[in-house]
Amino acid sequence: MMINELLKNRVSALGFESGQIDQDTIENLISAATRTPTAFNLQNWHFTVMQSDEARQALCKAAYGQAKILDAAAVIVISGDLTGYRHLAERLDASVQARLLPAEVAEGWVQVATQAFHDNPQAQRDEAIRSASLAAMSLMLAATEAGWASCPMSGFDPDAVREACVLPDNLLPVLLVAIGRRAQPDQQQKHRVPLSEVMSVR
Amino acid sequence: MMINELLKNRVSALGFESGQIDQDTIENLISAATRTPTAFNLQNWHFTVMQSDEARQALCKAAYGQAKILDAAAVIVISGDLTGYRHLAERLDASVQARLLPAEVAEGWVQVATQAFHDNPQAQRDEAIRSASLAAMSLMLAATEAGWASCPMSGFDPDAVREACVLPDNLLPVLLVAIGRRAQPDQQQKHRVPLSEVMSVR
Repeated sequence: MMINELLKNRVSALGFESGQIDQDTIENLISAATRTPTAFNLQNWHFTVMQSDEARQALCKAAYGQAKILDAAAVIVISGDLTGYRHLAERLDASVQARLLPAEVAEGWVQVATQAFHDNPQAQRDEAIRSASLAAMSLMLAATEAGWASCPMSGFDPDAVREACVLPDNLLPVLLVAIGRRAQPDQQQKHRVPLSEVMSVR
Repeated sequence: MMINELLKNRVSALGFESGQIDQDTIENLISAATRTPTAFNLQNWHFTVMQSDEARQALCKAAYGQAKILDAAAVIVISGDLTGYRHLAERLDASVQARLLPAEVAEGWVQVATQAFHDNPQAQRDEAIRSASLAAMSLMLAATEAGWASCPMSGFDPDAVREACVLPDNLLPVLLVAIGRRAQPDQQQKHRVPLSEVMSVR
């Protein structure tokens, strides 16, 4: 399906039918999402697949009781890594070794990233949200193409989600993505405002 | 092309050849991006197409002189609307009128969104970055499918970008997306870490 069709056909599912999704499919979707770009190729993200009943219940509570979390076939918590820049040299090394990136460019990036993020909590948070959100969109489009409905959720208590996911403090939960079969198969995408309201030319 | 192929084939272009892109194509890409989901269907984004030489020069300066901004066929500044929740009732009305959303659900969303964002600058900023980033990924995938290379850029002075784009204070520049023809057609995507490093199951 063309990307325009995927984007038009995707809806944020109002509810899910009960059902299962296998682990391979989930891993394929997450793997696709990791192809998303990040600043300096930071790959500053983490994907937590909420599988056990206990983990789902805790997550549901952390997200103000949203029933989709219990009903969906899978829920993936996408977090951004606030301190991802600390691993940048190591992460770029594989690209340098494979001659995909000149060593001096990689070194320069590490310097610039360290300057940008070290001791700058707002920049760390902004970048964590940016990267995790970019990845979430890839994940949802991959799910749509594979025939799965999805619903992104940003209404939750981040500390409680971190606890439910057993995440360290450097990971900031950014979006929960529920995946499954729509309870309302005829659900249509909500209206969008005309382009002229959200676009300008300079 | 399948979404997995699009994700694997996309690269963040290291440079652009000179060339042009027509306005219809740009509008089609932005239109596709507006199909991206937002919390409560806020549509809290704005797309500024940088067309004039003067605007490009100002943007280039605001982005620390990155040459891609001058070389690309188009540069689109994607901003998030910090106060998008103020227009939510109005934006949901079209979906209510079209019976895509029950009126009482829309009213509930407006209440919850107002509680979440009113007098909460951090929540406003987080949501602005989240929505603009989700949209940026859709835009880049649509561009890839249409045969255009792209490069997302988050290294810039937001106030200077706002000035170059003539944006009001409620719009936060989140990502610059340059679009054009790659200077290095054989450029390959950089390495990604194994899935096990960025995924866990609970």
